Amino acid sequence: MRFTRAYSSLSGAIPPAKAKYVPSTGTYPRGFQASGVFVGVKPGNTSKPDLALVTSDRPCAAAAVFTKNKFQAAPVSFSRDLLRTRANAGLRSVIVNSGNANAVTGIGGLEDAAAMAQTTDQRVGAEDSTIVMSTGVIGQRLPIQKIVDHIPVACHQAGDSHKHWLNCAKAICTTDTFPKLMSRTFALPSSPGVEYRIAGMTKGAGMLAPNMATLLTILATDVPVAPAAMTPLLRHAVDRSFNSITVDGDTSTNDTVALLANGAAGGPEVTSSEGSPDYAALREVVTDFAADLAKLIVRDGEGATKFVTVRVVDAATEDGARAVARAIALSPLVKTALYGKDANWGRILCAAGYALVTPPTHAPRDAEDITPERTSVSFVPTDGSPELRLLVNGEPEQVDEARASEILEMEDLEILVRLGTGDKSTTHWTCDFSHDYVTINGDYRT
Amino acid sequence: MRFTRAYSSLSGAIPPAKAKYVPSTGTYPRGFQASGVFVGVKPGNTSKPDLALVTSDRPCAAAAVFTKNKFQAAPVSFSRDLLRTRANAGLRSVIVNSGNANAVTGIGGLEDAAAMAQTTDQRVGAEDSTIVMSTGVIGQRLPIQKIVDHIPVACHQAGDSHKHWLNCAKAICTTDTFPKLMSRTFALPSSPGVEYRIAGMTKGAGMLAPNMATLLTILATDVPVAPAAMTPLLRHAVDRSFNSITVDGDTSTNDTVALLANGAAGGPEVTSSEGSPDYAALREVVTDFAADLAKLIVRDGEGATKFVTVRVVDAATEDGARAVARAIALSPLVKTALYGKDANWGRILCAAGYALVTPPTHAPRDAEDITPERTSVSFVPTDGSPELRLLVNGEPEQVDEARASEILEMEDLEILVRLGTGDKSTTHWTCDFSHDYVTINGDYRT
Repeated sequence: MRFTRAYSSLSGAIPPAKAKYVPSTGTYPRGFQASGVFVGVKPGNTSKPDLALVTSDRPCAAAAVFTKNKFQAAPVSFSRDLLRTRANAGLRSVIVNSGNANAVTGIGGLEDAAAMAQTTDQRVGAEDSTIVMSTGVIGQRLPIQKIVDHIPVACHQAGDSHKHWLNCAKAICTTDTFPKLMSRTFALPSSPGVEYRIAGMTKGAGMLAPNMATLLTILATDVPVAPAAMTPLLRHAVDRSFNSITVDGDTSTNDTVALLANGAAGGPEVTSSEGSPDYAALREVVTDFAADLAKLIVRDGEGATKFVTVRVVDAATEDGARAVARAIALSPLVKTALYGKDANWGRILCAAGYALVTPPTHAPRDAEDITPERTSVSFVPTDGSPELRLLVNGEPEQVDEARASEILEMEDLEILVRLGTGDKSTTHWTCDFSHDYVTINGDYRT
Repeated sequence: MRFTRAYSSLSGAIPPAKAKYVPSTGTYPRGFQASGVFVGVKPGNTSKPDLALVTSDRPCAAAAVFTKNKFQAAPVSFSRDLLRTRANAGLRSVIVNSGNANAVTGIGGLEDAAAMAQTTDQRVGAEDSTIVMSTGVIGQRLPIQKIVDHIPVACHQAGDSHKHWLNCAKAICTTDTFPKLMSRTFALPSSPGVEYRIAGMTKGAGMLAPNMATLLTILATDVPVAPAAMTPLLRHAVDRSFNSITVDGDTSTNDTVALLANGAAGGPEVTSSEGSPDYAALREVVTDFAADLAKLIVRDGEGATKFVTVRVVDAATEDGARAVARAIALSPLVKTALYGKDANWGRILCAAGYALVTPPTHAPRDAEDITPERTSVSFVPTDGSPELRLLVNGEPEQVDEARASEILEMEDLEILVRLGTGDKSTTHWTCDFSHDYVTINGDYRT
């Protein structure tokens, strides 16, 4: 039976297989409150919460990574300008609506984004302190009065309990089948006695729409961080998390990942000064946390039966490794072979072989990451048993098909590609393809 | 009811809706013979012809455009070397097997490709005169003895009737649901009394696999052409045909488009000398013919209900225009909106907006093809009625939804994007997406 996916999925039940990814409790960062309320932004939405607020009782250092699309939604322009003007300091809130992207809406759209921010600012009592996000249909104006009217409700209902955060995580969803919320505690080297907290939520649509699913993420922590450290820290984390899944964060008009740090837990301020152990440790925490959150989007892949890690190692450049991993992860033929439990490494190789071909619009690259006779491909089982070599230095192995089937039966699987051209590496996460597409391609080899 | 697509589709019936694309007669170039015979290259294929031969009774000028994939199949390496060695002259035949790609098969694979060519050469009585193509599964050695044993049969059965050409077109197919064969007559300016002929066949798989469906094409004409003119002529045609459909010709390990010209019709030799009217005319004929053949691949798109032309005009560069057209044509969200008859120009814009973003692996480009406030998008009905403007200079129009629905009801449709940054243009052909994918995305806006 297929689980029908629609805008208002979350007003129905969460699919049983996904329930394990929805936490029933959490440890949320001090000084933050969250809420998710129903507005009815999208005509036809009669119950799903669609207005989300995360707000801090004190000023935060904040940063955001935005879409690279040439057409940027109004909330993206607004929030980018805001963070620049504030130099990443003094932020308090993130206000989000789902159901309408407020994209390609001209001057009016910018005014709407500003109205959402200002209304929040007024209720919070701090000027120019609200980041705005929107997700949904493009090219239609927001029902702004309705939204603005409900912002006081969202502020009023905000709280710091697990339920508050979960409602908030639900309100940012569109076609997601489950809300994606996580929280964690950690310590930093210079203040081992302080318990720091980080929480985050994300939303992204089905795997079959890799190039335009809007990705929104809010990360909040109670560590004190210098404003200047925020952007490099977040960019590092995003490149290794939301930009490393096949619903990738760089293509819709609205993609935004924001990080707020309010310092409510106390301790020394973390700065990005060279060699700072606290900065290095925090960056690792945020990167790991963001990667785990990003993986939840992969787990929500439409029809997905497998969670696939694509690891590309021994590459001449990290960018090259990423391009190869991404090409493999995006390849419909690789993904159907995985679903069909077919050890079709030829498709993996084919995708890799095209990853670094220069498009006619761009100058050729310098580095040579791929040389057929140095390329090796293996399946790595997640149960700790030895890898299964499929291709070694460009030569096909005699594959033990029974062993391959055994590995492909597992829900989680790693594809390991050794390029043999350097020492750089990357990891990418994706899922398989199933259903109709498989009818055509999944059984092609047999 | 879905039409089940599998390797041996053609041993079953052609889907009724596609029958109109299969010709029942043709005018084939003089001096060429064709055949398609059954070998059983792929285990389990018990009846579909899978060995194809096109051969000329005299030497041809020939050229081929090959895949850009870094992993190139053995027949690609072999044929590329052959054409270089022969300087595009003295070729006689093309031998093709389907069912096995002879890709990533090492030295042994190269020997197999050479064996196919040499066996054909011997039967034809001309050394180093055979181009080789293969399509099918990657990484397995060909059943070469079986193939070599059947080449004499293919030579013996070759003939110049429509039935011979159609059998040949069937033999190169894999997951295609109908054979793709065309023929045409034409004249050239300097010899208006001579009737020239061109015939061609192609194969390519379902639309859902844009980045790895192997594309094979054989074009044959009886015009006399100077060997040096062949490559520029073919490259021009391929860029505007097989590289302008969403099953594009530049990504599998095996993609090959070959053109043979044997001069059997007589008349003066066509050279590529500057301003030659014959060359210009022939180039146009071949380009149009190749585009029509390429469109048949789009018509064979899995589950496709629409044939969509994406025209990008007023661009700063032709490469930029192509990147934009291609991004729109590849976008699953655009394609599902078309299937859902939803005038969702936001998705078109979104794809366009990402098309020219520089990947981290490449240097930024010079030209600026996209400026949001100069971009316009229209639907152009194919019945000659006026275009429907959706976006004008970056501002959404008040769209007449009834009119939009009317246009979207038609099987054929054009998306026109004006970039307003120059005078270059391009045309790309694609189809819509249907089925499961639509369950998620097609109804998102309503």
